[in-house]
Order: sequence, then C-alpha cells, then structure tokens
Amino acid sequence: MKAIPPMKVDLALGVTAPKGFRAGAASAGVKALTEKPDVALLAADVDCPAAAVFTQNKVCAAPVVVSREHLARRRALRGVAANSGNANACTGKQGLADAREMARLAGVALGCPAQAILVASTGVIGRLMPMDKVAAGITRCAAALRAGPEADRAFARAIMTTDTRPKQAGVRLTMRGRTITVAGATKGVGMIAPNMATTLGFLTTDAPVPAPLLGKVLGRAADVTYNCLTVDGHTSTNDTLVLMASGLAMEGAGKTLSRPVAAGSSDATAFEAAVTAVCESLARQIADDAEGGTKTIEVLVTGARSDDEARRAACAIANSPLVKTAFFGEDPNWGRIVSAAGYAGISSGPETMHLDLSGVAIFDRGTPVQADLTRLQSVMKAHDITVRLDLGAGKGKARYLTCDFSYDYVKINAEYTT
Amino acid sequence: MKAIPPMKVDLALGVTAPKGFRAGAASAGVKALTEKPDVALLAADVDCPAAAVFTQNKVCAAPVVVSREHLARRRALRGVAANSGNANACTGKQGLADAREMARLAGVALGCPAQAILVASTGVIGRLMPMDKVAAGITRCAAALRAGPEADRAFARAIMTTDTRPKQAGVRLTMRGRTITVAGATKGVGMIAPNMATTLGFLTTDAPVPAPLLGKVLGRAADVTYNCLTVDGHTSTNDTLVLMASGLAMEGAGKTLSRPVAAGSSDATAFEAAVTAVCESLARQIADDAEGGTKTIEVLVTGARSDDEARRAACAIANSPLVKTAFFGEDPNWGRIVSAAGYAGISSGPETMHLDLSGVAIFDRGTPVQADLTRLQSVMKAHDITVRLDLGAGKGKARYLTCDFSYDYVKINAEYTT
Repeated sequence: MKAIPPMKVDLALGVTAPKGFRAGAASAGVKALTEKPDVALLAADVDCPAAAVFTQNKVCAAPVVVSREHLARRRALRGVAANSGNANACTGKQGLADAREMARLAGVALGCPAQAILVASTGVIGRLMPMDKVAAGITRCAAALRAGPEADRAFARAIMTTDTRPKQAGVRLTMRGRTITVAGATKGVGMIAPNMATTLGFLTTDAPVPAPLLGKVLGRAADVTYNCLTVDGHTSTNDTLVLMASGLAMEGAGKTLSRPVAAGSSDATAFEAAVTAVCESLARQIADDAEGGTKTIEVLVTGARSDDEARRAACAIANSPLVKTAFFGEDPNWGRIVSAAGYAGISSGPETMHLDLSGVAIFDRGTPVQADLTRLQSVMKAHDITVRLDLGAGKGKARYLTCDFSYDYVKINAEYTT
Repeated sequence: MKAIPPMKVDLALGVTAPKGFRAGAASAGVKALTEKPDVALLAADVDCPAAAVFTQNKVCAAPVVVSREHLARRRALRGVAANSGNANACTGKQGLADAREMARLAGVALGCPAQAILVASTGVIGRLMPMDKVAAGITRCAAALRAGPEADRAFARAIMTTDTRPKQAGVRLTMRGRTITVAGATKGVGMIAPNMATTLGFLTTDAPVPAPLLGKVLGRAADVTYNCLTVDGHTSTNDTLVLMASGLAMEGAGKTLSRPVAAGSSDATAFEAAVTAVCESLARQIADDAEGGTKTIEVLVTGARSDDEARRAACAIANSPLVKTAFFGEDPNWGRIVSAAGYAGISSGPETMHLDLSGVAIFDRGTPVQADLTRLQSVMKAHDITVRLDLGAGKGKARYLTCDFSYDYVKINAEYTT
C-alpha cells in the first residue's frame, strides 16, 4: 500500500464542492424575532450511498428517530432537510409526525421518496415545530438550489445556532487519475460532548464508495475527531453526522475506473484519510467557536494502561469546570489537571505521572517541576494550548479537544431561551 | 425497635459540643497575604474509637495517605491537625514527610503518639507546605485549646478556603437516659464531587460507639449526604470525613449504661439518624455556600430500573453546566434536564418520563405540559428548587444536591491561584 500524503484541508470548500450536490437555504422564521437563515436543503443529483452516526442520548429527537428509520430501510439518500432554531426534541407524537412531514415535503420538492431524505434539526428543545414556516422554507430552499461557494456558505449559515461563524472544510485528492472531493459543513457550539457523533455534520463526496464502507470510514473518523470533542460535557439530543457519496467524480470514466472503492484498498485508505481530515477540521472549528470560549485546548494523554483508560482521563480533564476556568484565567493551575485524571478511574497515581503545558514541563513523577515562569506565562496567554499528560503506566493514548470556560459561557447559557 | 423521632439540627453546636473535645485555631500565614486563620487542632481528652472515609481520587494528597495509615494501624484517635491554604497534594516525598511531621508535632502538643493524629489539609495543590509556619501554628493552637461555642467557630473558620461562612451542625438526643451529642464542622465550596467523601468534615460525638460501628454508620451517612453533593463534578485530592467517639456522655454511669452501642440496636439506629442529620445539614451548608452559587438545587430521580441508574441520572443533571447556567438565568429550560438524564446511560426514553420543578409539572410522557407560567416563574426565582424526574421504568431512586453556575463561579476559579 502506498503511503498517504498529508491531506491539505481547504476551508473554501463546502457541501456542494463534490460533484452532484446542490444546496439552498432560507430565512423562514423558525428562529423567532430574527431574520437569520434557519432552513436548508442539500440535494443530490443521483441516489447516494450514505452512512450516518447519531446521538447515543436516550432522549433523542424526532428527526433522529426518523432519519435512523430511513437509513435502515434504504442505505442511500437523495437529500437532507435541516433546520436551526428548533430541535424538535421532547415533542412526542406530534414531533415525530412533523419530522416525517419535513421528509415528505423535501421529497416532493426534490422528486424522490420521503425515505431518501435525512432530516436534521437543532435549536431549542421541547417546542413544537412551526410547520407552516418550515414548509414554506423548504419550498424556498428547493427554488434556490445551487452549487458553488455561495450555496456552500448559505447552507453552513442556515444550520447555525449560537455559532458566531459558519463552519466548513474540504479536501481534494487524486484517485485513479481523477480529482475527488470530500467536503462538509457543521455547526456547534454548545451542548457538545461526543457520543458516536456530536452536533450536526453533513459530509459529501463524489468518490464511488459503497454504503457499508462509508459506514466504517465515518465511524472511525468520528471516533478520533467529533467523538473527542467536548464543550460542556452535555451530549445533545440531535447529534447527526452523515456522509453521502455521489460517485460522480468518475462520471463517464468507464466501468473499471468507476468501480466502487473496496475496503482495504489503497483508495479506501486515502479516502478515509480525507474524511478524517475534514472531520478533524470541522471538529476543531467547533472547538474554536465554542460558546464563550477564548482558547482551544488539546488534551493528549499517553502512557495509560489502555486507550480506554487514556480516554477517560482526557475526557475528565477536558470536562472539568475547574480546569476550564483556570485556562480562562491563564492560570497554570496544573493541580486541577492531574487531579481530574485522578478521579477518572485510572489505575496509576501521581508518582508515575508527567505533565507539560505546550512543551513546558510542570509536574514530574509526583513532584512539581521548577518551571520557566516566563515561558509558562507566554504559553498560557496563547490561543491554542496543548496539555500533555503521561500516566507512565502503559501504552494507551487518547486525545480530546476542548475550550476554556468564560463569563460568556454563563451569559450565553443563562439567557438562551428567555 | 422504637421509631426514631425526627432529628432537630442545631447550627449553634460545633465540634466541641460533645463531651471530651477541645479545639484551637491560629492564623499562621499558610494563607499568604491574609491574616485569616489557617491552622486548627481538634483534641480529644481520651482515646476515641474513630472511622473515616477518604477521597477515591487516585491523585490523593499526602495527609490522606498518612491518615489512612494511622487509622489502619490504630482505629482510635486523640486528635486532628488541619490546615487550609495548602492542600499538600502532588508534593511528592517531601509532602509525605511534611504530613508525617504535622502528625508528630500535634502528637507532641497533645501528649499522644503521632499515629493517634489524623492530618487534613485543603487549599492549593502542588506547593510544598511552609512547615515553619505550620509548626508555629500547631504550637499556638495547642495553647488555645478550649471547649465551647467560640472554639467551635474558630475551628470551623480555620478550615475555610473559598467558603464565605463557617459550617457546623449538631444534634442532641437521649440515649439510656443521658443526653448525647453528635456534632461536626465542614468546609466547601469548590472541587466538590462526591466519591466516598467530599471536602473536609470533622464529626465528634460523646456516645459510646466502637470503631467498626462508627465505620458503618459514617459510610452509610456519607453515601446519602456528602456523596450526593456536587458543586463542579471535580473530586478533590484531599476529601476526608472523620467521626470520633469519646463515649464521655456516659462518664460515671456505671458499666451497664456505658456499654458500647451494638450494631442493630435501637441505640445504633438513633445514633445513625443523628449522624445522618448532621451530615445532611453540613452537606446542604456546602451547597448553599457553593462557589458562585446563587441557588440550591435538589435533584430527585425516581422510577429508575435501579438505584444506581437513578444515581447516574441525578448526577448527570446535577453536573451539567447547561442545566446549572439555566438555573442561574432562572430559565425553566427543562429540555436540558431530560437530555442530561438521557446521556447518563439509562435504559428508558422520554416517552415514560415525568418532570416537575418544585411541584410544577412541565414534561409528561414525551410531551411538554402546558405549565402555569406565573407559578413556574415564581418557582425559578426561589433560592431552593427541587427537580423531580420520574423515569417511569422501575423503583430505583436517588437524590443529589447541587447549585447553579454563575459568573462568580468563573471569576473565583479563573483567579484562584494568581
């Protein structure tokens, strides 16, 4: 197998960058009192093999229930109907009927069965969808379907809630002599704690990849990107990450070149690297735009007895309000970091641990290190900080992305629905 | 067995209210830049059977290591040496030597072996103890040992860190015709998330209770009080809760009346009710004084498949920053509450859930309830709020105490060590 070159992520590429996709957005009034866009359609020109991962929250939203049903029955999609401003979660039977109606309306607009539509909603929990507005929005989106940078950004904007900026990313690579594209859009930026998938993410590609392989690739990519991201430790009711493959990069290329990418092939490896690179960029964009966040913090735990132990420790550090407020205060209060690892159910103690902050050693085998305070101060003032904790007990490792915890996090979340 | 009357908790009673205990405190300069008291001694006139529960954090502080050793070897104590301002955690071999030296100094001062002393520290992690100051403080405490309300409050003040007020409570009850007292002091109010015990708590009694029974009673009492308390989900390195029994309430009463309280007896039941009432009061005082907290929130989960499932759900709700900021904003954003239960690994979904806030129903079997908005607003404005979530799946139940999450929590914790 050939080595995979590092993937160059291009933030100018969005959901319609791969061949065969168009997008449209509308301001339909689902977000009361603003004219911000809140309904979006993503349309594929052909039936696309597709895979998705959904929230593991037992309290899952109606669109998640409906989308799971659709994908279970028909592992191919023709489009996505999405809205922001209302999560359609905890809305009972009426909510389920509304999610089904969104799929039906999008199917009519795109000329395909309702079951070829994935439905995704994000916003306030526990309010019934204003279906007259949603219906009008879907009609307007269908009339506005386009490909190109403007359509990409309109789509990415329409799925935003407390996000301050749209989030998209893409990768181009060469496969069998042709350029293929993997691209996606996502939203954050609160109620973010991974469990199979976090928040909404929509990925498209024109590579010829069959649904089972898409599922495997997406699951693994989510596991090392979206699932290692936490803003506030609260797993959403609506998490949905979908990947659709039009195969149109190989259009007219003949049967051999158009053959589906096989699991284990070098094409599959390159494709997975591209999907992972896009997911990594999208997850980092969420961390960068986290509610009230002023810093992006990467937590690397090594030397654990197992990857699972490393993950528990990294997750406890990334979710501790004491750790997060210390970073907001630019205070190298490393005792909070090692003590967070300590309550994560790990088997080793401080006597084997080593901690550094962006390369400055600060705690070593049970004892504080006399750190270079000037360097430490400049490390703490940076926007991006790496926490590297070695447990000194084995070879397990894990990584988490998170943000700090500021006054603005409290402000945003104390005032969200009122 | 006779029914136990409800226990009346008296906040005027502190650690020296039971017979046989004296306390002293000093401002020794462990807390740099303030003259606040920071060293305390609790002295027993006789060898006291004792039991303690300690943090389960793998990164545990030197005084926890030393106190565990002492209690394992000798299930009786003559005193406690405590300090605030420095946790003596993550301080390596020097920290262990310092904790042992604190016990030795207190033993010399009280005329008992070092192993009859429990050591407890709280404050900043990762700094070596200023032992000259601690030693001088212990000497001054020993000279100041007294019984009475003033000594009680001096002791309770000297163990405070970010607490805004001292915390103590006591109960008097009649046993075998004599008045016995159970009392205690505790501190909070950040890095609070229970795991066997949380924060520091010192309980005294003059009931004649042997060490094994003290251990059982303390474990069960902690389990339903301290261990159901969370401020920020971060289990401390220094958690220590100790209970010492002088037996002196029965002094001169003859052999029959002075016999040790037996497990399973009505005396044991009454004693456990008293210890539980004191722990409950102390835990609630911590919640009331939580860092930056403006409200005390009691989370009751019922109808779970098991008590353990109920506890996971209650803990997830009590720790969610989204739930806590919503309460700070006096916003009945109940979707955050049911979705927090949903990611706690429960087996049921929203379709069987029922939620009310201080008696106002708001979500019932998958669907929002049209709540009385005026009543709901007044409920949210109150200082004490009860969240009652029934999962509708079984008979398991659990309770958690927590607080809301405010700007001040961020301020206090962004600025703590700098």
